[in-house]
Amino acid sequence: MKTIAVLGSTGSIGTQTLDVVREHGDIRVGALGAGSNIDLLEKQIREFRPGLAAVWEEEKARELKSRVRDTNTKIVSGMDGLLELAVLPEAELLVTAIVGMIGIRPTMAALEAGKDIALANKETLVTAGHLITELAKKTGAGILPVDSEHSAIFQCLHGENPREVSRLLITASGGPFRGYKRKQLEKVQVEDALKHPNWSMGPKITVDSATLVNKGLEVMEARWLFGVRLEQIQVLVQPRSVIHSMVEFRDGAVLAQLGAPDMRLPIQYALYYPERPYLTGERLDFEKLAEITFERPDTETFQGLPLALKAAAAGGSVPTVFNAANEKAVELFLKRKIGFLDIYDIIGLAMEHHKRIEHPNLQQILDTEAETYDWIESRW
Amino acid sequence: MKTIAVLGSTGSIGTQTLDVVREHGDIRVGALGAGSNIDLLEKQIREFRPGLAAVWEEEKARELKSRVRDTNTKIVSGMDGLLELAVLPEAELLVTAIVGMIGIRPTMAALEAGKDIALANKETLVTAGHLITELAKKTGAGILPVDSEHSAIFQCLHGENPREVSRLLITASGGPFRGYKRKQLEKVQVEDALKHPNWSMGPKITVDSATLVNKGLEVMEARWLFGVRLEQIQVLVQPRSVIHSMVEFRDGAVLAQLGAPDMRLPIQYALYYPERPYLTGERLDFEKLAEITFERPDTETFQGLPLALKAAAAGGSVPTVFNAANEKAVELFLKRKIGFLDIYDIIGLAMEHHKRIEHPNLQQILDTEAETYDWIESRW
Repeated sequence: MKTIAVLGSTGSIGTQTLDVVREHGDIRVGALGAGSNIDLLEKQIREFRPGLAAVWEEEKARELKSRVRDTNTKIVSGMDGLLELAVLPEAELLVTAIVGMIGIRPTMAALEAGKDIALANKETLVTAGHLITELAKKTGAGILPVDSEHSAIFQCLHGENPREVSRLLITASGGPFRGYKRKQLEKVQVEDALKHPNWSMGPKITVDSATLVNKGLEVMEARWLFGVRLEQIQVLVQPRSVIHSMVEFRDGAVLAQLGAPDMRLPIQYALYYPERPYLTGERLDFEKLAEITFERPDTETFQGLPLALKAAAAGGSVPTVFNAANEKAVELFLKRKIGFLDIYDIIGLAMEHHKRIEHPNLQQILDTEAETYDWIESRW
Repeated sequence: MKTIAVLGSTGSIGTQTLDVVREHGDIRVGALGAGSNIDLLEKQIREFRPGLAAVWEEEKARELKSRVRDTNTKIVSGMDGLLELAVLPEAELLVTAIVGMIGIRPTMAALEAGKDIALANKETLVTAGHLITELAKKTGAGILPVDSEHSAIFQCLHGENPREVSRLLITASGGPFRGYKRKQLEKVQVEDALKHPNWSMGPKITVDSATLVNKGLEVMEARWLFGVRLEQIQVLVQPRSVIHSMVEFRDGAVLAQLGAPDMRLPIQYALYYPERPYLTGERLDFEKLAEITFERPDTETFQGLPLALKAAAAGGSVPTVFNAANEKAVELFLKRKIGFLDIYDIIGLAMEHHKRIEHPNLQQILDTEAETYDWIESRW
């Protein structure tokens, strides 16, 4: 029986990971970790009976500890707690579904310990891709993508020779504002941005889909995950999110992975790779679907993508600035302190202001993040 | 250096096979075989310098022999000649691109000798699938499909566990008469039937595309090639032939292979499997493509598909009758002796008239074919 640890078990990916585990009953949950949602974490502890549970916020950890005294679950807290979870001896695989930069150190600790990673934390590869991939290579640990786009590419590449890849085609829904021009984006509200056409996700990532920043982050991740050059990655708008992504090989053949919009599929693929157990749920009905359409992304209106490509091309510490600035800007937008288009301006200005570090180590990455936060907070 | 033998080198698949060989220059052509086109065969002999060339028609073989006296190529003829080509000691792989039932015995001889087969001869699996797959299993020889649909499925299955397949989705262009109703089909002429929307092929297979008989034959082949039940195969009309076919797995994931309509791609995949060398040619441009549409096949109008499914479900010698009756009927149609819809009637009547044999051996298959020919010739 495979044992896994789930970091970020109370979020969207975390709960769906546990749905998959519940459906099959042949994976043991060795540890659960969350930021602060101890109500849900308590329920998960009672259902999955992990040996360890980690809570990021110290006070919440103390409260949880007193609540689950009747169980055999040890409660730990803070970064030390997340790190203890990451290197749990009995776990073979760590699901990193926690959002934000706090996911990086646990991910690196797990890789250092030779554990496979089911990676759903975007920040890890975006900001520290050079460190992460080097570490995985050193210890032989596998990085299994959980994002639907990267999982699609990973599925298409399975059994293929990576040196025969000519192009990755990352599909994008285009978000709720597809077809809008700049003028229209000036007036959009938080409520509008939170209406994603195909996927039900958390607010931060939903806004990132609307700005196309999310797609930009995915391009940055894909580059590290699949070892390709930026120019080999093409973003293609395909509004109904039926084709999750594609790979073109040097013989001209294109392999695509398609499916219903259900995150449990890429999660399960990462948990059971390379096996595909039966999964309940919707199947694609092509006759009903009738058509799949493609468009070039409107990168003049949706600056998230060109800004990301600029950050990726600059490399070093710049992707960290891109990510941190976007994080803060989305926070401000969700608090209604700035407009939708200000997100792009803030990212652009933060990148301009930053002094690039060529090969940042983890501390420099974290410092860059903190400095970017400070700079934005002092201005908006 | 890999050595291949090409049976049917002067036809559409044969010449494209030699195009692929010419492009790379790292495969040796050990033998070439053709039906009667000795003008082209002579050119091919002078270019590829095979040790052996086989010609089906005795008289043509004699003529060729005198023409190529200045080369080192030995000329053989008739079925003995084709069989000598099939088991050529230095060849690892036999491309069976010859059209019709004469392809079966050489294919079986090659499999018996443990050689891999790049299979483009439809009749082989349709009529003798039970014998062929058993033989390949016994000697460990591989059957590599060359048809674009089967190659697509084969590519999607590479690296996957066949037991995890839930469905094969074979795509169909729908042919030149897609959207027509029975009334309109009554009046179509040979010229209309020969206009295929996407692929440039020989007249017989082009008519088979128009009747959907070709798709029916592909379903029968897929069943043997991939070891699935008939109910697991779905035919999906996708007019622009961009998706060459798809596989749905039990987790709900669908893998698809897409590409420009260029037969050199599946041919090359079979010749170099599992490698994908660079291939010149068109690449898919999804932004230009703009859309892929899907339709349910109109099986009321295009009886080729339901007739094929009926023959496949009956099994035994019935698929041979289906194939032989279609062959004769298309011949009559191309000679303008019958109308387009008569093709269906002739196939249906021949199947009704036939007394089914449960597990036909090769002789019984060949006898069934001859009897079907005779029965049709005596009536039309």
